[in-house]
Amino acid sequence: MAGIQKFGFEVLHEDPGTRARLGVLHTAHGDVPTPVFMPVGTAGAVKAMPADFLEALDARIILANTYHLYLRPGHERIKKLGGLHSFASWNGAILTDSGGYQVFSHRELRDISEEGVQFRSHIDGSQSFFTPEKVIEIQRALGSDIAMIFDDCTPYPCGHVDAAASMELSLRWAKRCKEEWNRADDGTQALFGIIQGSVYPDLRKRSAESLRELDYSGMAIGGLSVGEPKDLMYEVMESTAPLMPADRPRYLMGVGMPEDIVRAVAQGIDMFDCVLPTRNARNGYLFTSQGRILIKNALYAEDREPLDPNCSCTTCRKYSRAYLRHLFLSGEHLYAVYGTLHNLTFYLDMMRKIRQSIRLGNFGKWFGLMEKEGD
Amino acid sequence: MAGIQKFGFEVLHEDPGTRARLGVLHTAHGDVPTPVFMPVGTAGAVKAMPADFLEALDARIILANTYHLYLRPGHERIKKLGGLHSFASWNGAILTDSGGYQVFSHRELRDISEEGVQFRSHIDGSQSFFTPEKVIEIQRALGSDIAMIFDDCTPYPCGHVDAAASMELSLRWAKRCKEEWNRADDGTQALFGIIQGSVYPDLRKRSAESLRELDYSGMAIGGLSVGEPKDLMYEVMESTAPLMPADRPRYLMGVGMPEDIVRAVAQGIDMFDCVLPTRNARNGYLFTSQGRILIKNALYAEDREPLDPNCSCTTCRKYSRAYLRHLFLSGEHLYAVYGTLHNLTFYLDMMRKIRQSIRLGNFGKWFGLMEKEGD
Repeated sequence: MAGIQKFGFEVLHEDPGTRARLGVLHTAHGDVPTPVFMPVGTAGAVKAMPADFLEALDARIILANTYHLYLRPGHERIKKLGGLHSFASWNGAILTDSGGYQVFSHRELRDISEEGVQFRSHIDGSQSFFTPEKVIEIQRALGSDIAMIFDDCTPYPCGHVDAAASMELSLRWAKRCKEEWNRADDGTQALFGIIQGSVYPDLRKRSAESLRELDYSGMAIGGLSVGEPKDLMYEVMESTAPLMPADRPRYLMGVGMPEDIVRAVAQGIDMFDCVLPTRNARNGYLFTSQGRILIKNALYAEDREPLDPNCSCTTCRKYSRAYLRHLFLSGEHLYAVYGTLHNLTFYLDMMRKIRQSIRLGNFGKWFGLMEKEGD
Repeated sequence: MAGIQKFGFEVLHEDPGTRARLGVLHTAHGDVPTPVFMPVGTAGAVKAMPADFLEALDARIILANTYHLYLRPGHERIKKLGGLHSFASWNGAILTDSGGYQVFSHRELRDISEEGVQFRSHIDGSQSFFTPEKVIEIQRALGSDIAMIFDDCTPYPCGHVDAAASMELSLRWAKRCKEEWNRADDGTQALFGIIQGSVYPDLRKRSAESLRELDYSGMAIGGLSVGEPKDLMYEVMESTAPLMPADRPRYLMGVGMPEDIVRAVAQGIDMFDCVLPTRNARNGYLFTSQGRILIKNALYAEDREPLDPNCSCTTCRKYSRAYLRHLFLSGEHLYAVYGTLHNLTFYLDMMRKIRQSIRLGNFGKWFGLMEKEGD
């Protein structure tokens, strides 16, 4: 297997006016320029997006959910079929989450102990037990380019005592994940740590510093965008980002709206994922350069304009708002395809503009203008 | 508007061993080689098929449903937005049915009189009244390349007395349709007659002969594939086809399975439509050169093979049966996209092979072999 690209990260350029940086992830499935937004492909497929469309968008990395793939079709089956890239016929990079967040989301179905988490499948009610070691084994079977540690995620609000206990448990699990990962590490699959600690700066600091010592390939901020006010999310993000190693990729999990992403880039975050562009598209919520469009609105019934006159996606090149509204109201599968294509184009174009502005040294100016508008 | 292609039909070649013929429909939206299968695009979109995929398949004509488009978004609205081609951004040809079959399908919601049909919308229960004149007006507003007369469609079984009364009513409506169509005919939109008469040869003969006198641009056989046994369907088709004008396109409505289409081509039928390839795809029923595949079958859970090793569609080039089964079971929109793409490829490839075999003079041999296998 000589010649296979090992995982790596380079910072290519730093913005003079903010902490934003331009970088590149090297993976066994190609290079990924950062800052990057990873479309969510829960079940090994970005919902309603034919792979041809994703490739045409130049999406280089997608996120898949360990929890979902473990339950269906099963990681052993995917391994037997050549791993997730081969199974899903996706040649770009893949990051798998650890299932921690999904187990957290189905709170009523789970039971946590020091050893791990017992939970019931949301599909058929069957019982499973996730341990840190098991979750690393599953992600190894899937063969993702980037694996995440198994963590416990607190809800919002959460008292300091509970948040501290949860964070400490996550730290012990983080260590077990790293040990399990070390056993079979050949340099191709990265493992990222996840900083927890709810909205408490002291807990976030302790989490970040302890994880640094474990020397992960990258570091993530977890446990945000779980219902806390936006200002609080920004505060935690802004105080936590500087605690993350500067020479490793920094990943803000599950965030978010376009303006959140721009703010996080200004704090030095490199990687993002979120269901918003894809899920909102399916629900009729479309992002445009002129603000959001709720496509079912009667306002668009005879509107010949494209969703966004500044967008060059196939949806905007070919179809009117009136036609898209008609497809949405008629419950056509195609609406989901065209809506998702547009929203993902919006997100990936935004990331291209962010990277370009960092390259040209004017991200700070752009970001400053945006902050002013937000006042 | 000088220079716009008027509707026309040419027979290019006749098969020596059967009644099969190779032809071409000339329309204002391009030439359509026949025999042709028209994918069904009920609401102005072939379900789950991005237009790029349809174009790549070289689909030259699709069918849209007058009944559905009248109810939503409304023919007046579509007219205001430039007609159906412009609204749906489809540059190929479009045939619109007359809504007769849909009104027939929602039998409990309708009330027939000499003047027309009162019916309730299956969407919101609102009342509408279709007359022959109204249905021509709607299809003119939609701007389809081929319009169909408004007919009454009998169920199966249906007694001779009822079938005769229904057929005579259809004939009177056919005449009214033709008169309304004549008023604004500029040669670009064709109008096809529809032969009715249930399973009774005398009624079919009377219908066909009376319609011939009205000199339509093409002729269709309606009222088949409504529950009658297959042999009876073949009998009616085989006795009716010779009654249709040889110099006009012949269209068998709503039929059918691949073997039905081959048999009908041998009787000189030129045009087909059916929901089978698209609807069956969405339900997990896939056509292959080696027989049908029900994709949910556990047999395919770890099957690395493409759906059909003899198919060159993107679905077969990229994905395994195991992955498609996983998408189907996970309820992913993408399954519908890939399944539909495959089934439509199967149908359109079959039509290409039929046309090629007529061109080469070996359709009869191929058809003979198929009949033998069927024994």
